[in-house]
This record gives sequence, structure tokens and C-alpha cells, in this order.
Amino acid sequence: MNTFGQIFRLTSFGESHGVALGGVIDGMPAGIDVDLELLDKEMARRRPGQSLLTTPRKEADQVEILSGVFEGKTTGCPIGFMVRNTSQHSSDYDNLRDLFRPSHADFTYFSKYGIRDHRGGGRSSARETVARCVGGAFAKMALAKLGIEVKAFTRQVGTVSLDGTYRDYDLSLTESNDVRCPDVAKAAEMAALIKEVKGVGDTIGGVISCVISGCPVGLGDPVFGRLQSRLAGAMMSINAVKGFEYGLGFEGAKGRGSEQNDVFTTDDGGRIVTLTNRSGGIQGGISNGQDIYFNVAFKPVATLLRDQQTVDLQGRPVEFKARGRHDACVLPRAVPIVEAMAAMVILDSYLINKTVKL
Amino acid sequence: MNTFGQIFRLTSFGESHGVALGGVIDGMPAGIDVDLELLDKEMARRRPGQSLLTTPRKEADQVEILSGVFEGKTTGCPIGFMVRNTSQHSSDYDNLRDLFRPSHADFTYFSKYGIRDHRGGGRSSARETVARCVGGAFAKMALAKLGIEVKAFTRQVGTVSLDGTYRDYDLSLTESNDVRCPDVAKAAEMAALIKEVKGVGDTIGGVISCVISGCPVGLGDPVFGRLQSRLAGAMMSINAVKGFEYGLGFEGAKGRGSEQNDVFTTDDGGRIVTLTNRSGGIQGGISNGQDIYFNVAFKPVATLLRDQQTVDLQGRPVEFKARGRHDACVLPRAVPIVEAMAAMVILDSYLINKTVKL
Amino acid sequence: MNTFGQIFRLTSFGESHGVALGGVIDGMPAGIDVDLELLDKEMARRRPGQSLLTTPRKEADQVEILSGVFEGKTTGCPIGFMVRNTSQHSSDYDNLRDLFRPSHADFTYFSKYGIRDHRGGGRSSARETVARCVGGAFAKMALAKLGIEVKAFTRQVGTVSLDGTYRDYDLSLTESNDVRCPDVAKAAEMAALIKEVKGVGDTIGGVISCVISGCPVGLGDPVFGRLQSRLAGAMMSINAVKGFEYGLGFEGAKGRGSEQNDVFTTDDGGRIVTLTNRSGGIQGGISNGQDIYFNVAFKPVATLLRDQQTVDLQGRPVEFKARGRHDACVLPRAVPIVEAMAAMVILDSYLINKTVKL
Amino acid sequence: MNTFGQIFRLTSFGESHGVALGGVIDGMPAGIDVDLELLDKEMARRRPGQSLLTTPRKEADQVEILSGVFEGKTTGCPIGFMVRNTSQHSSDYDNLRDLFRPSHADFTYFSKYGIRDHRGGGRSSARETVARCVGGAFAKMALAKLGIEVKAFTRQVGTVSLDGTYRDYDLSLTESNDVRCPDVAKAAEMAALIKEVKGVGDTIGGVISCVISGCPVGLGDPVFGRLQSRLAGAMMSINAVKGFEYGLGFEGAKGRGSEQNDVFTTDDGGRIVTLTNRSGGIQGGISNGQDIYFNVAFKPVATLLRDQQTVDLQGRPVEFKARGRHDACVLPRAVPIVEAMAAMVILDSYLINKTVKL
Repeated sequence: MNTFGQIFRLTSFGESHGVALGGVIDGMPAGIDVDLELLDKEMARRRPGQSLLTTPRKEADQVEILSGVFEGKTTGCPIGFMVRNTSQHSSDYDNLRDLFRPSHADFTYFSKYGIRDHRGGGRSSARETVARCVGGAFAKMALAKLGIEVKAFTRQVGTVSLDGTYRDYDLSLTESNDVRCPDVAKAAEMAALIKEVKGVGDTIGGVISCVISGCPVGLGDPVFGRLQSRLAGAMMSINAVKGFEYGLGFEGAKGRGSEQNDVFTTDDGGRIVTLTNRSGGIQGGISNGQDIYFNVAFKPVATLLRDQQTVDLQGRPVEFKARGRHDACVLPRAVPIVEAMAAMVILDSYLINKTVKL
Repeated sequence: MNTFGQIFRLTSFGESHGVALGGVIDGMPAGIDVDLELLDKEMARRRPGQSLLTTPRKEADQVEILSGVFEGKTTGCPIGFMVRNTSQHSSDYDNLRDLFRPSHADFTYFSKYGIRDHRGGGRSSARETVARCVGGAFAKMALAKLGIEVKAFTRQVGTVSLDGTYRDYDLSLTESNDVRCPDVAKAAEMAALIKEVKGVGDTIGGVISCVISGCPVGLGDPVFGRLQSRLAGAMMSINAVKGFEYGLGFEGAKGRGSEQNDVFTTDDGGRIVTLTNRSGGIQGGISNGQDIYFNVAFKPVATLLRDQQTVDLQGRPVEFKARGRHDACVLPRAVPIVEAMAAMVILDSYLINKTVKL
Repeated sequence: MNTFGQIFRLTSFGESHGVALGGVIDGMPAGIDVDLELLDKEMARRRPGQSLLTTPRKEADQVEILSGVFEGKTTGCPIGFMVRNTSQHSSDYDNLRDLFRPSHADFTYFSKYGIRDHRGGGRSSARETVARCVGGAFAKMALAKLGIEVKAFTRQVGTVSLDGTYRDYDLSLTESNDVRCPDVAKAAEMAALIKEVKGVGDTIGGVISCVISGCPVGLGDPVFGRLQSRLAGAMMSINAVKGFEYGLGFEGAKGRGSEQNDVFTTDDGGRIVTLTNRSGGIQGGISNGQDIYFNVAFKPVATLLRDQQTVDLQGRPVEFKARGRHDACVLPRAVPIVEAMAAMVILDSYLINKTVKL
Repeated sequence: MNTFGQIFRLTSFGESHGVALGGVIDGMPAGIDVDLELLDKEMARRRPGQSLLTTPRKEADQVEILSGVFEGKTTGCPIGFMVRNTSQHSSDYDNLRDLFRPSHADFTYFSKYGIRDHRGGGRSSARETVARCVGGAFAKMALAKLGIEVKAFTRQVGTVSLDGTYRDYDLSLTESNDVRCPDVAKAAEMAALIKEVKGVGDTIGGVISCVISGCPVGLGDPVFGRLQSRLAGAMMSINAVKGFEYGLGFEGAKGRGSEQNDVFTTDDGGRIVTLTNRSGGIQGGISNGQDIYFNVAFKPVATLLRDQQTVDLQGRPVEFKARGRHDACVLPRAVPIVEAMAAMVILDSYLINKTVKL
């Protein structure tokens, strides 16, 4: 299933070392101004080689829009797009052709399909997220017209973590450092940790937080289409993600109802709001107009620049060492991907919500 | 969206105090023996009033199978089913008609639809999970033929928590106590905590763990259909769930790749397996043949048997107190629901996986 | 696949001689007045035994609404409904248990599923259309608010056929006779033919025409979601249907473009309209505001009250004779079914169309 | 909705005069040899300018495969593909920018989206069928392994029509002439008619027949997923198609059941077969192992090389004359498109059918 969404739908294609990656955005509302600067910015945020903290791979990642845009506006027709693979060092993977790297998708893909493109992980490569960033950029163009903003940031790298909630930080500082953490001091600690880990050929995990503000009441559907269900499904589909929580999340599971209910009141404009927002902006699966916020846990990536044990296609033990250019920590580059997936979920839910009344 | 799944699909309907709840199971494989005892057992596990720990509501919850079964076997045609509502005390909710209970779905439903059935929460009631348990029971009937087992248990209630992994417990003890915790001593602590909380009209959250064993290699799809994506979407669609993690989850986000990779080896039969299973049985979104395990966080339910502040439909402040029969902790009754959703995801993924080769 | 539609979705279940038939209507807009009289009327039009022309089977077909309606209005939540089977003579089918009736679904169902409910054709029975009529009635309730009307009528029975287009008849006369033909003289001819055919244990086919008026511009989508695609898929899913055409249809395939183009002009209100409507109200897959009209061809039903040759489950030749109560011509009772399917397609397309702009 | 199919899915994009057309084929079975010759052949059959009967437009239509193929085999991952637009004369359409051509999609697209790409009809252009031919070619690669063949041919142009059924002709002659009609003499008549019509700037309609042989028993699903439903939906989604019928179709609607039932018998191998095949290879919505055959009616295309009346965007009357290079009769080039859509439906149904048993 390479299609995501119900009304606003992204279908993606492409392998790490194939000819190109790309996709089709279907259900994009018509008449939206296409903001190419925004698209470039999102691609740049995802791009490898953007800082010393990330992989030194250089990928131009020039997005070519193939359809669905006319004289600077979306037409409501599907937007085909493509990014050519230009900087692939496929020979880096020659030694991996006949073995299964630990905690990678090599074994499961080969078992499932009976064939796999071993170069750079093929379809299982995080390079696939290029398509998500393009889809997310278009979703953001529509959300901007609705006054909805999606902002993610790095909350934790290894054991270095922010203590406060998103409200305790100035999120405009997120892009001020390579880690994408709005607490500049913590960011420096995180960066130091990433460099240390990288120096020993290891990798490190972490947590990204995301906040959606300006979201109207009513997005999400009862039962299986709950907004948190869509967000969790979206986030868990990102490479290396192992956990999702919203509102008080796992921490809230320890507490009592009397401490967690959000009391309703009215704001100065007479609008019904909640005094607190422990619910995370969603009640009964439907947005309540407050900020939606959630955390996404990333495991340390499996590619180590060290000798590792594994087996070959026949199950015989072999030792290998990964070559090539890899991230020691994916968090900084995953921030725009979390935003992209969230933006697509919100726009899709917004469009679906238009159909509940005549 | 009241349909769940792609090939094996459950469509559910019904409100807490309406005529009936029920659903349609579509895509159930043909020729499976219908195990009515299993169905009854699953319904009994979900049923209110089963112990002192749960709501004293008595619901007969007799499932009537309306179609799709012929001479004790499934026919491949859709299975319609229904459970009549017989024990509803709708008048318990008369005082809630014109107000929005804190942290319930009252406000969001009313805002979204312009109308709501206020009785017992209407569609947003956890009574809706009756349909999930029926769907899950049928999924389990098919999984049993495949040697796949789904077992959930209560891991945590409030701050009382198991310390070990699922392998440290004898899961056959799960049903030996009302809390559904395989550690009998901890179960007693949890039960005491629930009773204490209940005594003061409060509620308490917790965590349920689930293990899927016997799962073949190959379930789940690349990119958006990752198995963890489907599981997370399924779990987050359950009432009161706030978080999902699999494998090492949030804890693993703190660590390094060198500590977390699962090295491949072969077992006595020459089958490729992993030495450890920190991945949680899924790699690249596809099951690798090891146990799949995950945690689900539940918030404390919002219905308190205490005076609470809120607003009415016009936004005017009001005080109210919930009446009726409610769970102080949903965990014990949510264990079968977690299993039901997991069983449906696994069967669906199994059927989808049949289509990847000619 | 027992679900029909994308936003407005009907999921149906039930076999001819099972416990009940029914379904779930999902995506029904909220706040629509539920017109139970309309529902009863549609069910009565479909009901067997309504006239001498149809099967003498008596089926009460009392629809029980199980959810989704509160105080006379739709709530936006799924509408579960059910019709119990009460008048089944299952023993009429005992002699068919071990054989495959010619041109029925017996052989294909048994081959596909390895099991079949032989009683009354099981799931393949036209009795399944009960669910469609309920779905269609709810769709009509919504369409009525939009000023959209769906009217079908019997155009042809065997070789007795109307010559004119729908505009040449007063469609309010359709229900004035048992055949549901707006030309009362032709209706009498058709009725006579049906009686004659019935008298010799035979059956007869025909054509139903349908007109959708008041449809706004813009329903239907480019490429695969063309409105004619949805209508054709819907009609071809009705039992015994063998053909679909809209606008000039097969007749138009003989002609030239210069004779068939519909020239644009403006009406008195300045609205852009077409001078003629050979296109059948759809251009480029999207409604153009003119009447949508189409024809549906029905084969003569396969159940003959005569001796017939066939084979048993082992392929051995056997002779059999159907027992029971059957229609010699399904056209009169299929008129409301064609309307129901068309109404669901139009409402679904209307709701989808709400999502093409922000 | 620019995605077609349930398991085998084609998502298409592109406008007539945009940068490129293309699509994504998802759900292609893994391990299938990619037959590039077949792909080229199918593209050549669809290509404009292939004979004097078709438009003189020259389109290279070089398909570039971007992903999903590794070392000559499909990998089970999505196949992205693209055809650049190279021969577009967009200025041919400058005079059409501000008016609505009769019986084209100009008016409906503009009304629906509030914007349209007027060049060459934009998304509504039949050039979009490039993507269908690519999808169909891949489907045929898989079907070839299953021994399933899809063959279409021109049955009728204007009033020149074949009289026999497909069994009366040698379908290997279909490609022997420019009309793609297996009756060479009739083909000459048809060709003469097309030239005559073209000479006067007019266009002409017709009928294409299609036969699917070698199809196993069991494809298609009860109720809404009937095989004829999927085929009809597929065919009606092709530009200019106005009608669909299978088996005896509209002609059969005139007759009696006693003349049309297909009696079961066994063949020399003991396999259950039908003596006749009036049903068209489908019973109860499911293939019965006999040939599946159907007809598709095409209207004469709307683009005339003559002066025509219409209105501009403001509804003011204007006269215009189309420029450029257009087909006077689309039938010859639509033959491979009918095959492509049929091939995709059959492969999709084959894959779905794998899921009905464990």
C-alpha cells in the first residue's frame, strides 16, 4: 500500500538507488497558490548533507512538478512529481547483496517478495520520505490558507531531553540550530552527543514533538477514523519510529481522572474552550479547537559503521561492515517529515469533515 | 469512517442507548469453523459487571449472528451481527442533555454534527467496542487455524506496574484474576488501587501489553502499510487510548544502535531468526517471524462520580454530577478489545500478503 | 466487497433464507429529517407479491432502524438496519442442494468459496436488494433537500418497447400500473406479455430507463471517477443486469459528431445550458446541470418453472424443476432498485464534490 | 479519484500539454519478468500518427520506468513511470482559452474547479490513456503467466458493423489492418467511411468488442464487486464511451429465459462447463471459466474541424473552429485501451480472489 490518505492522497514510488523517486498527490484542492519557495525550504530541511550532524551525502533533490499546476495555481487535478537519483554510490552496497543486515528490512523484504533491490535499502530506505516532504509541502500550502500551522521539533536525543511542554519554548528558535531543538542550550548538548556517537561509528535515538495550532473544531471521525488514529498511523509509518503518544500520553496513564479532565469555559469572544489541554486537542477522536500535540519516538538507526555479525541468504554466519554515508541520528532530518505527515493528515481530515453535512 | 481494515473489514454501528449495536464482518475467509464458545468467551471478557472491579451495569450482550454462516462454517459472505441494548438507563443521562461533560466527546460531536445523542455518550461510548470484540473473535477463529495467537494483559494500573517483559510472566495466569495481570501479586495491588480510587469517585489509567506469537514472516507492507502503522492506528482508535509503542518503544529512543540491533542467526531447523528481539517482531514494516509485542497507554476515564464544573450548550457555567454505573478503571475490560483489534490487523495483513505473488 | 460508495457508503449483508438481511449506511449527512413514509413506500415498491405480475411470495420486509437516528433526524453516525426473513420456504430448495442450476450463481459460488448456502440462492439472491432500497431511501431523503429527483421506469419488456425519450412521457404515470411504465397503453401490452410468459413457466427480460433531474453542475470526477463510471458500476451490480448506456448510448455509436454535439447557450437567467442533451447530462465525466438519463438492460431471469437439464456437484447430468414462487419478469420490481442505486451514486458524488475546494 | 483498482492499482497523472503524463502501478506481483517489447507494442498501438486513419500528431511517447523493477523483474514495489510531452502545439488552443467547446469537458471542469488548463483539454484529454496502456501492459505480463488473454477489436464504425460473434472471426487478423477489425473486408469499408467523414471535418462513433479467454473460475465478488460491475466501471471511464454490455447484452433483454439459460455439462476432462455461453462468462458476478466477452460503445468525438457555435466564459455566443490534429474516429486507437482496462480488472480480481480462503 503506497497510497496514504482518503481524500487528500499521496501515492509514492521509488527506491534509494533507482532512477527516481516521486509520487502523485491526488485530491489537492483547486485554486491554491503554489508556493515553490516553501517546497524548496521543506526539501532543504530534509536533505542530507545539510550540516555536520547529518550524513555527508549530497543529494540535489530537485523536485520536478509534472502536472496539476497551471499558471501558478493548483487545478484540482493530480500533481505528479519526481526527484531524480543523482548522487547514489551503489557500489557501496555490493558487499551487502548477499546478506541480511541486522535490524534492517533486508530479510523481511526478501522473504516477502522473493526478490529485493539491495542497493541502499531499496524501497525501505528513508530516502522514500522525499515524496512525503513534497506531499506535506502541498498540504501546508492549503493549511496556510486555513490558518493552521504544524510545527515539530527535536525534544530528546538519547538521554538529553527537554523537560517542559511545547508551551515553555519559543518554537521560532527550532530552525536556529542543526538539531532543530528550540532550547538552544539543550540543542548544543544534543549536538555534542550526536558527534560523540558518530565518532565511534554508533547511532542514537530520540523523540520529536509536534504541535498543530489553529485547527478548527470537528476534524477526525468517530470510532476507526479518530484523529489520533490517523496521526498515529501516519507517524508509525515513518522509518525508525517506535512509539506515538498525544496529550499526556504514557505519563497520563499513571494518573487519575480528577487530575486530568479539561474543564470547559468560554473565552473572551464567548467561544467554548478548555481551561487546560491535557487531552491534546482531541476529544472523542475529534479536534476540539485547542492545540494538538504529540510525541514520536525514534529508535537509533540500524546502520553502524562498525563490524557486525549476521547471516547470508543461505543462513551462514558472516561478518560485514557498512560502507557509505549515513546519519548517526535521524532526528534533525526527521522533523520536517513528522510535520509533512501531520500536515497531510490534518488537510485530509479537514476535507473529509466537509462531507458530514449537506 | 466506521469501517476498519482493507480485505478483512469490520463495519460497526450503534449507540450506547440506541436500539442495538452491531456490525458487518466482510472478507472473512470461507470454510472456517465458527467457534461460538470462543465468541461467548470474548464477549464475557468485555462485559460490564463481570467483577467488583468493573461497572455494575448488567448487559446480557447476546450476539445474534444474522448471516454469513451456514451449517457451522463461514461462507465467505458478510457476517451481519447484532447485540440489542436491553439494560440502558437512559434517564441517568437526562441531566447531561444540555451540557458538555469535561474530556468527553459531547462538545466535539455536537460541534461537528450539529446534533448528538446524549444518552450514554451515544456513538462515542465504549459500548461500541462490542462490535470490535465480535470482529476480533472471528479473526481469532481464522488465526487459530494458522497457529497465530494474540494475548494481551494489564501491565500497569496507575503507578503499579510490572517491571519485566512479557517473557518474564506466565501469560496463562492473565485470566486468573479480575485485573487480567499475569503477576498475581501485582494484580492484587492493582485491584486494591482500583477499589481505592473507585471509593472516592475517581478513575485511574494504565497500560496494556499485547503479544502476537506464531506470526509468519511477511505481514505488513512497505511505506504506509507498515504493520506497526496498522497496529498503532487500530489501538489509537480504542476509547481512552493515548499512546502506542512497540519493541523497545520510547525507552529505546534513549539508547544506541550498537545496543539495540538484533543479530541474525539460524535456529536448529535452519530457519533464519534473530538472537534478540528488540525490534518487536517487525523490521521495515514487515513481520520477521519473531513475537510482535507492544504497549498501549490508557488515560483515566473522564466520568467521575463527583461534582464537576463545565458549560452548557450556550457556554454558561454549570455544575453537574454524573449518575449511573461506570468503570473506575477500564483496563481489565480493555484487554480483550486490544486483542480483538490486534487479531483483526493480523488477519487482514495475512490476507493482503497473499496477493504479493501470483 | 459488500460495501458500495466512497463517502456515502452502504455495507450490506444477508442471504435469502438466513436470519436477516440488512446493512450499515455510513456517511449519511447529519441533521436530515428521516422520512419513514418514504422508506416504507420504497420497500413496498420492491416487495414481492405486490401485484399479479410479480412473485406471489409474501414478505413483510419490515425495516428496523437500529442506530444513527435520534429524535427523527440523522446524527451523522452509521445507520444500522435489518429486515428479518420470515416467509422463507427453505424446503422448496432441498432438491437443489446438490446441483448447479443453469445460469445461476450456484456453480460459481461453490467453486469460489468451496461452500454455499443453497437455500434461495443464498447471498446471490435478489433478495439482497432489500438493503439497497433502504440505502437508496436515505439517499433520497438527502437529495430531496437538494432538489434532486431520481425517477426510473420500465421502458421495454421483451419486444414491447417505448419509442420516445423520457421527455415524451408523463413520468407521474409510472406508478399508475403494475409494470411501472408511464405509457399506460404500452404498459397493458407489457403486462399481457408477462402473463403469457408466466403461464408457460418462462421468463422475460427488458430495459429500465432512469432520469436524474435537478442535478447541479460538477458531480463526478475526471478519469476513473467519471459519473458514468460510477453509475454503470452501480447498475451492473444489480442482479440480472447485462447492459448500461447513457445519453445516446449504443445508438449514438452509429452517428457523426456533427449530429451529436450539444451546443451551449444561456437560459433566461443567464445560466449556461445546452440546447440539446444528447450527452445525457454528463461531459468529461462531470454533470453539466442537464438531466442525466440512462438505460439498463435486464436479461430474463434464469429460474424457469420447467424441467431443465444440468449437472450435480460431481458433474453428473441431472434433470430438475424449480419449485417455489418466482418472478417471470423482474422489471417492475427492479425500477425502485435502479433508483436506489442511482440515488446513492448521486449523493456520494455530491459529497465528494464538496472536497474539491477548500 | 485518479486511482483505479483495489489490490492492483493504477494511479495516473498528467495533462495533455503539461510537462509529462505518468503514473504509479501499485500491487504488481513480485518476480514477474518485465517484457519491454510488450510495453512498446502496446504504446505503439495507442500512439497517434500510426496510420492515415488517425491523427497526424506525432508523439514519441517514450515510457521511462522509474522504479519497481530490478534486474528485469518486478520487485513488488510500486512502479513509477513517465512519458514526457514533447510534441504539443499549445498555441493551437489559444483561441479556446476563453470559450467552452460543445460536448467537451471545458464547461464542467471550469465550473467544478474554478480553473482549467485549456491546452489540449488538459486532464480531460484522451492523452491521459497513456498511463492506462502502461498499467495494462504490466497487467498483461502477469496475466500471460496465468494463461489469460485479453483481445479487443473494432466491431462497428458508424453503421458498418460485424454481424457475427467473436467466435466467427480469426482474431489474429485484428492487427492486420489500421481499423483493427478481424474481418478484412469490413475493415476496408470502415476505413473508407472514416476517410470520408474526416474529409468533411466530421467524426464518427462505433463499437469495440473484447474477449477474455483462459480466465479461471472464481474472479469477481458477490453484490457490489461483481466482475461485470468492475468491467463496466472500467470501460465507462474511457473517454467517449457511452455504453457497455456483456453476454447477450441489450439484445438479450428482448428474449426469454428458456432461450438464454446456459446448460451445464462436463468436458472431456470432466470439468464442469456450459454448453452455450450466452451469459458472457460471468454468473452471479463471478467468472465461470468460459470466455468473457463484452461490447463498448463510443460516441463520435466532439472535436470537429468545422465552424461551431458556443459561448464564452461569460456566456456570450461565439463562433469558433478547432485547429490542430485530431482523430476522426477513435476506435482503432481505443482497442488497446479497452484491452488495458480489461487486463487491469482481471488481474486485480485474480489477486482479490486469492484472499477468500486462508
